[in-house]
Amino acid sequence: MPLGETIFSALRAAGISIPGDCGGQGRCGRCKVRFLEAAPSPTPADSRFLSEEELSAGWRLSCQHRVEHDLTLEVPTLGEVAQVKVRSGGEPLGSLRPQAVQQTLTIPPPSRDDQRADLERLRAALGEEVEVPLSVLVKLPEALRAGNFQITLTRVGRKVVAVEPGARAKGPYGLALDIGTSTLAAYLLDLGRGEELLAKALANPQAAFGADVLSRIGYVQEHGQKGLAELKGRLLEAIGQLVESLVGPVGLSPGEIVQAAVVGNPTMIHLFAGVDPSSIGQAPFTPVWKRGMTFQARELGLQMNPEGIVHVLPLVSGYVGADTVAAVLACGLHRAKGLALLLDLGTNGEIVLGGRERMVACSAAAGPAFEGGRIACGMPGVEGAIFRVELNGGVRYQVLGGGEPQGLCGTGLVDAVAALLAIGLIDSHGRLLPGDGTPFAARIEGEGNARRFRITERKRPIYITQRDIRELQLAKGAIRTGVEVLLSRVGVTPEEIDRVYLAGAFGSQMRPDSVVRIGLLPRELLPRIVPVGNAAGIGAKLALLDSEALNEAHQIAQKIDYVELSHEKDFAEKFMSQMRFPESSKEIHS
Amino acid sequence: MPLGETIFSALRAAGISIPGDCGGQGRCGRCKVRFLEAAPSPTPADSRFLSEEELSAGWRLSCQHRVEHDLTLEVPTLGEVAQVKVRSGGEPLGSLRPQAVQQTLTIPPPSRDDQRADLERLRAALGEEVEVPLSVLVKLPEALRAGNFQITLTRVGRKVVAVEPGARAKGPYGLALDIGTSTLAAYLLDLGRGEELLAKALANPQAAFGADVLSRIGYVQEHGQKGLAELKGRLLEAIGQLVESLVGPVGLSPGEIVQAAVVGNPTMIHLFAGVDPSSIGQAPFTPVWKRGMTFQARELGLQMNPEGIVHVLPLVSGYVGADTVAAVLACGLHRAKGLALLLDLGTNGEIVLGGRERMVACSAAAGPAFEGGRIACGMPGVEGAIFRVELNGGVRYQVLGGGEPQGLCGTGLVDAVAALLAIGLIDSHGRLLPGDGTPFAARIEGEGNARRFRITERKRPIYITQRDIRELQLAKGAIRTGVEVLLSRVGVTPEEIDRVYLAGAFGSQMRPDSVVRIGLLPRELLPRIVPVGNAAGIGAKLALLDSEALNEAHQIAQKIDYVELSHEKDFAEKFMSQMRFPESSKEIHS
Repeated sequence: MPLGETIFSALRAAGISIPGDCGGQGRCGRCKVRFLEAAPSPTPADSRFLSEEELSAGWRLSCQHRVEHDLTLEVPTLGEVAQVKVRSGGEPLGSLRPQAVQQTLTIPPPSRDDQRADLERLRAALGEEVEVPLSVLVKLPEALRAGNFQITLTRVGRKVVAVEPGARAKGPYGLALDIGTSTLAAYLLDLGRGEELLAKALANPQAAFGADVLSRIGYVQEHGQKGLAELKGRLLEAIGQLVESLVGPVGLSPGEIVQAAVVGNPTMIHLFAGVDPSSIGQAPFTPVWKRGMTFQARELGLQMNPEGIVHVLPLVSGYVGADTVAAVLACGLHRAKGLALLLDLGTNGEIVLGGRERMVACSAAAGPAFEGGRIACGMPGVEGAIFRVELNGGVRYQVLGGGEPQGLCGTGLVDAVAALLAIGLIDSHGRLLPGDGTPFAARIEGEGNARRFRITERKRPIYITQRDIRELQLAKGAIRTGVEVLLSRVGVTPEEIDRVYLAGAFGSQMRPDSVVRIGLLPRELLPRIVPVGNAAGIGAKLALLDSEALNEAHQIAQKIDYVELSHEKDFAEKFMSQMRFPESSKEIHS
Repeated sequence: MPLGETIFSALRAAGISIPGDCGGQGRCGRCKVRFLEAAPSPTPADSRFLSEEELSAGWRLSCQHRVEHDLTLEVPTLGEVAQVKVRSGGEPLGSLRPQAVQQTLTIPPPSRDDQRADLERLRAALGEEVEVPLSVLVKLPEALRAGNFQITLTRVGRKVVAVEPGARAKGPYGLALDIGTSTLAAYLLDLGRGEELLAKALANPQAAFGADVLSRIGYVQEHGQKGLAELKGRLLEAIGQLVESLVGPVGLSPGEIVQAAVVGNPTMIHLFAGVDPSSIGQAPFTPVWKRGMTFQARELGLQMNPEGIVHVLPLVSGYVGADTVAAVLACGLHRAKGLALLLDLGTNGEIVLGGRERMVACSAAAGPAFEGGRIACGMPGVEGAIFRVELNGGVRYQVLGGGEPQGLCGTGLVDAVAALLAIGLIDSHGRLLPGDGTPFAARIEGEGNARRFRITERKRPIYITQRDIRELQLAKGAIRTGVEVLLSRVGVTPEEIDRVYLAGAFGSQMRPDSVVRIGLLPRELLPRIVPVGNAAGIGAKLALLDSEALNEAHQIAQKIDYVELSHEKDFAEKFMSQMRFPESSKEIHS
């Protein structure tokens, strides 16, 4: 984490979902994290929101403390799974039924009357067949004898991935990995206790080769095998750093991680595996594989136990990937009796509509506006970004981390446009109006396409421009078109949707009210919107904690029908019409 | 092969079983081999025994031609399998049902209406599930497109080990490997056509660390992990050389070998896998594993396709190994309705008695005499060794390769002692008598333990000494005791045995008549003795050619009851009494 930032801001910047309604100002009390070592003295805000027990257990509000050295934190993301569970209103999403288990066995030593071999002796004690790879077999005779024929096995399913003499009390450990186009998020899990130990994130270093998946595919097509190896190498190096930063603070080594679940969009997943993604880049946009894959860590070169098992969750199409499948898993769409809508908005936007009978999905090219890209004063959602804007008498805004505003992130842009729409300063065509006679007239400068609204009055003012509004119209139009296409494909109206999950680093941070105000979603859905954080990451964690969830992921991928928007009849027209904003009662016709 | 030797002699020295009753003198016509390139001009003996068709196809008698450069030969060892089949008198031992297969598929390319991924497309064309490792998956998109969606898959069972664009007509290839304490024998098989392409042998370079398994185990115990790595490394290097020498002459590369079957005694098998064999060296003599193991070539570091599958056949105990299981498989003991006895005599002697209902086995420490060790004029069974001795009026002997005699190999020793017993010059206690009044008196020199019989009259005479006879008594006594213990364990008499298989580099070369004359086996068995060559190697080949045979090997190992001779009651007394030779009608009581 970058030094000096608040922990709240650093976690959010890292794509780790953490609740917090006040934007890091110590006023909502929801952003608590637990210091696993050396908790700082509580601030007045800590004391106001947290109980004595919580404080003495190391819980603090993450917005109240800055990153001053490497930290070991418990981030209550697993709590979110529970939250999702409750909100999905049905059966629990998963139990603690990990594939990776540790077993301590005491085995009778060989004797004249019992000449069974070490391995047969072990199998008999286990009472079932197991697969023992050579690198583990080699360690078996010494481990058995050093522990006086007491031995601890670590297994992933039938495969024994480690043997140690004597009894071992901790572990096994798993790694959940969400490979985003922009951000890598990694979670270290204690699979024995069903706990998340630590979560970390890092920018995807492939960004240097292009911001989006198409430019990365282009890089491979241009540079061939060498380019592919380069992209894979950079990614694996960064994942290695993440793994080191996860295991170090809790006193583990990478070799103690015995299982991993990996999600990401199809291109990222191909690059992670070192498989040429070129076929995704051109019609008919097919990936090299779709179904869930199980690799050995050694094959991938992933920094963990080389015999460890790596599950790459299944893909749905060339543009709807393992991250979407994992998000569906986390939100429980596939079990929902009614209809649910899932929007996972990050660098790419994926939309899934359906329930346990049927699901349809599409990928919408939202462009970079949601991430602050191509926006005049845009910036990513990190410390210094304005992420909330209200026009209530005057202009009120909130800054991530609470300091000086540096720019406008995606949620700030959505909020600002929503507020301007609400008071009629933007019309349904997206035109920024002069605002004459309103309290905000003085903040509006320029004419036509150069017109802009001044949000801050500081030395370096922050504006939202007419062009920014056009960029947002493109982004929301693309997503809304996707939603409409799926609705019509399933043949339902918004009223029939029971629940809307907003997921992803960006998607889950949006204010539901602003979401419907800009028309990203139909207004009827407002009461049913549930922000769910990094649902893809939660799904990856579920796949490790509950082996049944992994099977479910496979079923989900098979159940989802993919809708290719570019094949949609009259797509361009639909898209054009969805770029308009909803009419406002306060619209000023000028 | 050593340059200058006859091919016949080089093949036999290399442990490759080749028929030949006249000992390489061009008189029996049975030792034919096929030159795959540049066959030499036929000799008169070639022309006498071989047809025009055979000659023009490159067949020659191996005793008629010398190794003058690297050779590519077809050795008709698979014919032996057929021979064994016929002789075992039952159902055929195996069919051509290899696990390794090649399939050429034409797959519909992706289109707007068929957006299945490459891998799903492939699986649908195959009509079944296959496992595709990452290193193969990586090659799939390019292979599909380079071949216009025609592709050749090489599979071992469900695992795809290679993909190539277009149609491939040849292969797949397999490697059968018999790791002996003294000799490594390797066979290259075309698993598509069910043919052996080439067979090669090499001395086991671990001999530098000790001649027998116990001294190799001792080396590991003394030098720890480093010693183990050293022994494994030497072995793998030699196997790598063997592989190169097999594939080179037939224009293949090691990577085209996709499956291997490996046999050997338990210690050799442990060292091959890099697993510490120490537990075999001390009571209760248990190996680290017994059951058949399946490794990936990559795990073992074996020079072949790294995704290739390596089957290590099952072991029975610490001293009865995969070689014995393979020999049983080759001879079909496990299918025999009656009772059969198998003697596999090499550096170690293993004995199996039984049939399809039940089998018992033991390992007998025969000592080095059968290999010419600790024998005054002893030498291994290579060119220059006297391997047949007859005392019929005068002394007649045959030399491997037909040249000047250099010494006496194990079979020569057995023959000589048998002949001396037959004419009464050795008594049943093993004493070499002065022979006064016999035509051989002049050949007997010295007194007591220094007494010796001169076989040759050349410049450097070759003797058989009283001490040599004692060594042979130890060796035959050990084997015969094992046979007797097994007979009594099963509760049968020799008369009830239907067939006796003599296997192994040494075992299969002995004259049945001499075998019973020295009392290695009861005389009643003489008409039922069948020499079967390197049965262990044949079994390894069967395991590749017929996947069912691999299952049978597993059943064989489970069916065999191991008898530990050292635990046998009154073992020492039994052994002492078995050191005596059978009484001869001509015994001279002196």
